Amino acid sequence: MPVRLDRSSADFDQRFAAFLAAKREASADVEAAARAIVDDVAKRGDAALLEATAKFDRLRLDASSLRVSAAEIEAAVKACEPATLDALELARDRIETYHRRQLPKDERFTDPLGVELGWRYTAIESAGLYVPGGTAAYPSSVLMNAVPAKVAGVSRLVMVVPSPDGKLNPLVLAAAYLGGVTEIYRVGGAQAVAALAHGTATIAPVAKIVGPGNAYVAAAKRLVFGKVGIDMIAGPSEVLVIADDTGNADWIAADLLAQAEHDSSAQSILITDSARLATDVEKAVEAQLKTLPRAAIASASWADFGAVIMVKNLGDVVPLADAIAAEHLEIMTVDPDALAAKIRNAGAVFLGPHTPEAIGDYVGGSNHVLPTARSARFSSGLSVHDFMKRTSILKCGPDQLRALGPAAMTLGKAEGLDAHSRSIGLRLNLS
Amino acid sequence: MPVRLDRSSADFDQRFAAFLAAKREASADVEAAARAIVDDVAKRGDAALLEATAKFDRLRLDASSLRVSAAEIEAAVKACEPATLDALELARDRIETYHRRQLPKDERFTDPLGVELGWRYTAIESAGLYVPGGTAAYPSSVLMNAVPAKVAGVSRLVMVVPSPDGKLNPLVLAAAYLGGVTEIYRVGGAQAVAALAHGTATIAPVAKIVGPGNAYVAAAKRLVFGKVGIDMIAGPSEVLVIADDTGNADWIAADLLAQAEHDSSAQSILITDSARLATDVEKAVEAQLKTLPRAAIASASWADFGAVIMVKNLGDVVPLADAIAAEHLEIMTVDPDALAAKIRNAGAVFLGPHTPEAIGDYVGGSNHVLPTARSARFSSGLSVHDFMKRTSILKCGPDQLRALGPAAMTLGKAEGLDAHSRSIGLRLNLS
Repeated sequence: MPVRLDRSSADFDQRFAAFLAAKREASADVEAAARAIVDDVAKRGDAALLEATAKFDRLRLDASSLRVSAAEIEAAVKACEPATLDALELARDRIETYHRRQLPKDERFTDPLGVELGWRYTAIESAGLYVPGGTAAYPSSVLMNAVPAKVAGVSRLVMVVPSPDGKLNPLVLAAAYLGGVTEIYRVGGAQAVAALAHGTATIAPVAKIVGPGNAYVAAAKRLVFGKVGIDMIAGPSEVLVIADDTGNADWIAADLLAQAEHDSSAQSILITDSARLATDVEKAVEAQLKTLPRAAIASASWADFGAVIMVKNLGDVVPLADAIAAEHLEIMTVDPDALAAKIRNAGAVFLGPHTPEAIGDYVGGSNHVLPTARSARFSSGLSVHDFMKRTSILKCGPDQLRALGPAAMTLGKAEGLDAHSRSIGLRLNLS
Repeated sequence: MPVRLDRSSADFDQRFAAFLAAKREASADVEAAARAIVDDVAKRGDAALLEATAKFDRLRLDASSLRVSAAEIEAAVKACEPATLDALELARDRIETYHRRQLPKDERFTDPLGVELGWRYTAIESAGLYVPGGTAAYPSSVLMNAVPAKVAGVSRLVMVVPSPDGKLNPLVLAAAYLGGVTEIYRVGGAQAVAALAHGTATIAPVAKIVGPGNAYVAAAKRLVFGKVGIDMIAGPSEVLVIADDTGNADWIAADLLAQAEHDSSAQSILITDSARLATDVEKAVEAQLKTLPRAAIASASWADFGAVIMVKNLGDVVPLADAIAAEHLEIMTVDPDALAAKIRNAGAVFLGPHTPEAIGDYVGGSNHVLPTARSARFSSGLSVHDFMKRTSILKCGPDQLRALGPAAMTLGKAEGLDAHSRSIGLRLNLS
């Protein structure tokens, strides 16, 4: 059974704090193993990459078969159901439309002294997109990563995806095709991250690596961070549903289970001021679990990490929601917009009863790569910004240097940096 | 002597690649030591923090003396030269004006189907600012970190600064005062990073940690990344000067030395098409070194990591500059704007002969916290964006769900996520 917390009980603060602090991921120390693989690929390149692939994916490749051929991609597209391809195309188009609005604007202005200032955005030259193999191989995630990169103007977009025992999900290749990704390598794990970061004879290095992966992938990304950019360290997914007595228990239960079915470490939370709704949702969850294909995963997630939190009135939920800082926040109350405006920490908000989170996962247009594990307190979902960078611009003429130079010289001297001061003084004949 | 490379020599590509790959930092493995400290503070809180401070800073504190008092801050402000305070105020005001322009806009729009989409920016609730002690205690850096956080709307801004043997730089406290930072703790190193990330009885945890530090601080930031946000892992500073025959050798030499005096691992590079200028700059560097207070540091940096790269014509510099991806890029050519527009990778660009980088360090208004060690290929300087996060917004009504739902259900089923599909089907009476 999921935990039940009551905001009005005497020990609520303590229990809520414990709930927030609970770890949902096994903290098996995979770092040493990931480091050994990364170092090996950095040193021995393709040879190490091929050995690791033979070992972990049970797949013997050579340098010439690392890359997925155009013919394979074409065949995968042909193997997909037309209705699925249509849905992927709809998703791609809507993601593209949404993300085009994120393209940042350059700025250039002249201040009252005549100093020219501003900044300029440019796309990252190359990006690597990690796509998990096996059960977590989601074509929708390929689009969610590839489309913003393309919109940003990344000219070289490389995908890596493991093919355990040689198996590749045709939908993943089809999504890559629709997202405009043509350079794909059938490698995964820490070895693929290392190849993208350090480069091998076959795989040229990239400037930034994005995309989710297992604990080894996460550890490898953390290790190569600095050498290349990374997006985030993604954890198990979570949803917070806030509902009042107007909420539909069946719909809410379905949404909680949609989160829970991802992973036994996923987390589904309901906060409500309605005891009736809380009970009805719990019953509906049990009922729906009976016919759910992934019931084993979903029921483990719900039992181990699910929660129903009772509040006296909906105003009380704001600090709780901000502390939870959910990846996905659904609000099904009489006035969802008003409540959403008060909540500060959430990766994405889904407003009203007709916006199940699954719409946002696929075809809403916004990105489904979102901050997990309370990181919405300090970070944002994937966007076009993740594939661009900003160069600041400064231009003084002699008059401006004369106006600003003395203050800068004062600070340079105060910091013990005389060469800083001198670089200005020489120009002003002040040194 | 700095390395001399010639773009037209047969082995240039190889030598340039080796130059780019050269490490400038000792790769002493401090991670294990940092991890032990971080874990200890996470577990034992204040007690561990105080013990580490006694050990590394030779300073015995108790919980009540961790925080720098308002009276101490006031006394520090009074101890500063009025001219220095004036210069810091000018810097603060100009940084604030520049960064106000970075405040991102929320977006909300309705698409042709009637789906409401958008995003909303909010400030991070709390941020920790690490300020190094000792020689690298720069009041200007306090402003460069604190002002964007304040502009973003961060309500709790905490500063940590080590005070080895009890010594605190009054200018650092004065800069904090001017930047509006009132919560300051006299701790540093990995233990301070751990306290900010995990919290102790005295120091409440923050959501994000920014600011430069030594190798232990960098390792600790990397370790707590995920638990909290971090800005970047900063490395030694660097400048690339691109100049043609119109360049003033004395000014360029001064700028190269302004970079070199930071740290013996700093790097100063000149690329020019003028053999005359290259020789004159090298001579001017030697001449200026003779009277520079930090000559030992600057000459070590110049000798070990400095470089003069000759090109046949200035068009050749674009790929070289993009590969170097310098933190600071100065362009002193006949048409600096035209050349700057072609270069993609740089943290900040300083245009023309009257814009020495030192202006940008202090009073230009743009941020001096910039990506080092080639990370301008994938990241940007510190900005208001680093202290805000974006929540995406999605709202469907019944009609919109009917329009988009079937495609989302198709994708849910294709990914094996039936509960996703069902959460939509239930609402549409399709399940």
